[in-house]
Amino acid sequence: MIEITPLSRMLTAALQDKIDQKTKPPGSLGRLEQIALQAGLIQQTLSPVISQPTIAVFAGDHGIAAEGRVNPYPQAVTAQMVYNFLNGGAAINALCRQLQLSLVIADAGVNHSFAPHPMLNDCKIAYGTCNYLHEPAMSRQQCALAMEKGAEIIRHINAQGCNTIGFGEMGIGNSAAAALLMSCFTGLPVTDCVGAGTGGTPQQIMQKTLLLQEALNRHGAPDDAEQALATYGGFEIAMLCGAILQAAALNMIVVIDGFIVTAALLAAHRLQPAVIDYCIFAHCSHEKGHQAMLQHLQATPLLHLDMRLGEGTGAAMAMPVIQCAVAFMENMASFETARVSDKTS
Amino acid sequence: MIEITPLSRMLTAALQDKIDQKTKPPGSLGRLEQIALQAGLIQQTLSPVISQPTIAVFAGDHGIAAEGRVNPYPQAVTAQMVYNFLNGGAAINALCRQLQLSLVIADAGVNHSFAPHPMLNDCKIAYGTCNYLHEPAMSRQQCALAMEKGAEIIRHINAQGCNTIGFGEMGIGNSAAAALLMSCFTGLPVTDCVGAGTGGTPQQIMQKTLLLQEALNRHGAPDDAEQALATYGGFEIAMLCGAILQAAALNMIVVIDGFIVTAALLAAHRLQPAVIDYCIFAHCSHEKGHQAMLQHLQATPLLHLDMRLGEGTGAAMAMPVIQCAVAFMENMASFETARVSDKTS
Repeated sequence: MIEITPLSRMLTAALQDKIDQKTKPPGSLGRLEQIALQAGLIQQTLSPVISQPTIAVFAGDHGIAAEGRVNPYPQAVTAQMVYNFLNGGAAINALCRQLQLSLVIADAGVNHSFAPHPMLNDCKIAYGTCNYLHEPAMSRQQCALAMEKGAEIIRHINAQGCNTIGFGEMGIGNSAAAALLMSCFTGLPVTDCVGAGTGGTPQQIMQKTLLLQEALNRHGAPDDAEQALATYGGFEIAMLCGAILQAAALNMIVVIDGFIVTAALLAAHRLQPAVIDYCIFAHCSHEKGHQAMLQHLQATPLLHLDMRLGEGTGAAMAMPVIQCAVAFMENMASFETARVSDKTS
Repeated sequence: MIEITPLSRMLTAALQDKIDQKTKPPGSLGRLEQIALQAGLIQQTLSPVISQPTIAVFAGDHGIAAEGRVNPYPQAVTAQMVYNFLNGGAAINALCRQLQLSLVIADAGVNHSFAPHPMLNDCKIAYGTCNYLHEPAMSRQQCALAMEKGAEIIRHINAQGCNTIGFGEMGIGNSAAAALLMSCFTGLPVTDCVGAGTGGTPQQIMQKTLLLQEALNRHGAPDDAEQALATYGGFEIAMLCGAILQAAALNMIVVIDGFIVTAALLAAHRLQPAVIDYCIFAHCSHEKGHQAMLQHLQATPLLHLDMRLGEGTGAAMAMPVIQCAVAFMENMASFETARVSDKTS
């Protein structure tokens, strides 16, 4: 079991003093100053650095999606999009190239057999989850295995020198699973948790809500994080949960993307509340439930770009903000070294 | 006189179609899609590019600041900060280095003689403006000269291959000038326009407001853009106004920073309303009046990072977002080329 200790606040005053000595009015870099402070606390240093920033995308399929009842896109799109990632054609590829971020793709449980590919991590638990309308999405053993495989990938990425990781996902039907997990962990009714996902019509959203209520009526809303993950899935969400916990345990900066990644964080947070200390919330997704999730976690997202794509695209967009926060800490002159007069009052 | 034509909307449908063919749910890249569309319209192409993105910072001194009555920092800080820019130690230097942006510094009218420096453009109109409590900040001739020098710098930057320019400023006292210009161009009372600037106390803000009301009582609120600029200054704001107009006239993407740069844009917009078509509003500054300025222009800022530093730091932070918008247009696969299924409905 991964244990995460709350951040030591020992360096807070020294970090704040360093920030305030920079040649700018105190507080005038806003959120960048907060991130610089958090990065210093996570790395326990007055000179935090961002090394090999990486986006890790976990893909999986969902039993309920095979029925075509929660998403306007067919289930086959999950595998098609994994190929798109491997071929460099997806949004996250374009953003990672532009922002010079590493990109790692993991097959957590796509309903397709992929040939080996240098960019693809084969972590497949099964060919998609079961349909939670009829039975639990996965067994407890599968859930534990998914979490461990997520952690393993992070240990590997970290060992190669990455200290800042953004998370993303792909899986037709996973906004439904995330909505169910949100309801389990926040206690909010499912109507507050269901949104358009990849873009359903109001009628489709209504149908999705009814189906998810049916699932909740059948299985209840487990309090236990692993039980909730096993009941509603998916493999990519359980894997994200394990990956997030491992990243925090390794003192990495954890960049949380949108609705589905935040659902995985809700599970991680239920298991280890201190995980939140290591998280930067990249953006507020346009997906309906995300804002309430963030409020539940008392989290303030960095960006509001009306994005709702997943794949870690929001996390990618936050990376330059985080890099700039660390850059000003490292590279700006102080009032003393630059011989700039401080306030007269 | 620079004339700016409203953007041709001829390519709108073709650009939107290209955006919608990308392998993502329609609209799911949010603001990035809007920026991609705007960039395509500005450059009149389906394949916009960002070339040599640059931040241009204009510095100037203000007669009223010499009295130490509107800012907690002494006037000497303007020149000290210009040296800090030239030495690479300011916030904007750290951000430009991190984001690989070019940085241009212009002395619009600092109260100091600088030795020649390869990074410093000498555009000095005078050693600071006059104090508008007693007389107009500058003559109409000085205002016209400042605008022309701003335009000249932009022509030079553009000729070297830059097509995307963010604007910044430095000048102790310039949030007071910007507040007066805001009052002139929006018609809002000065109390709605005055904020903390670099960080005054509530009492200092009250005193600043009273002084600015005194100035408005003396000179009125000129309707004419150049008259308002000449009355309240500063040189850097007039130069920014000319620079913004020239950049739009050259079909450059114009990235607007915070409170003071937006005040310059208000003047430019009064002269040439179509200038707004070429502008991307980088962020909403924490400075009190900025939000109302943006509302007046019906502008939606990209970022909300609680920054209020100036120097073009907000514009710099917006650059990666703009670059990513253009990158997805250029580099993402379409449903057809990636063989990804589109919606079934």
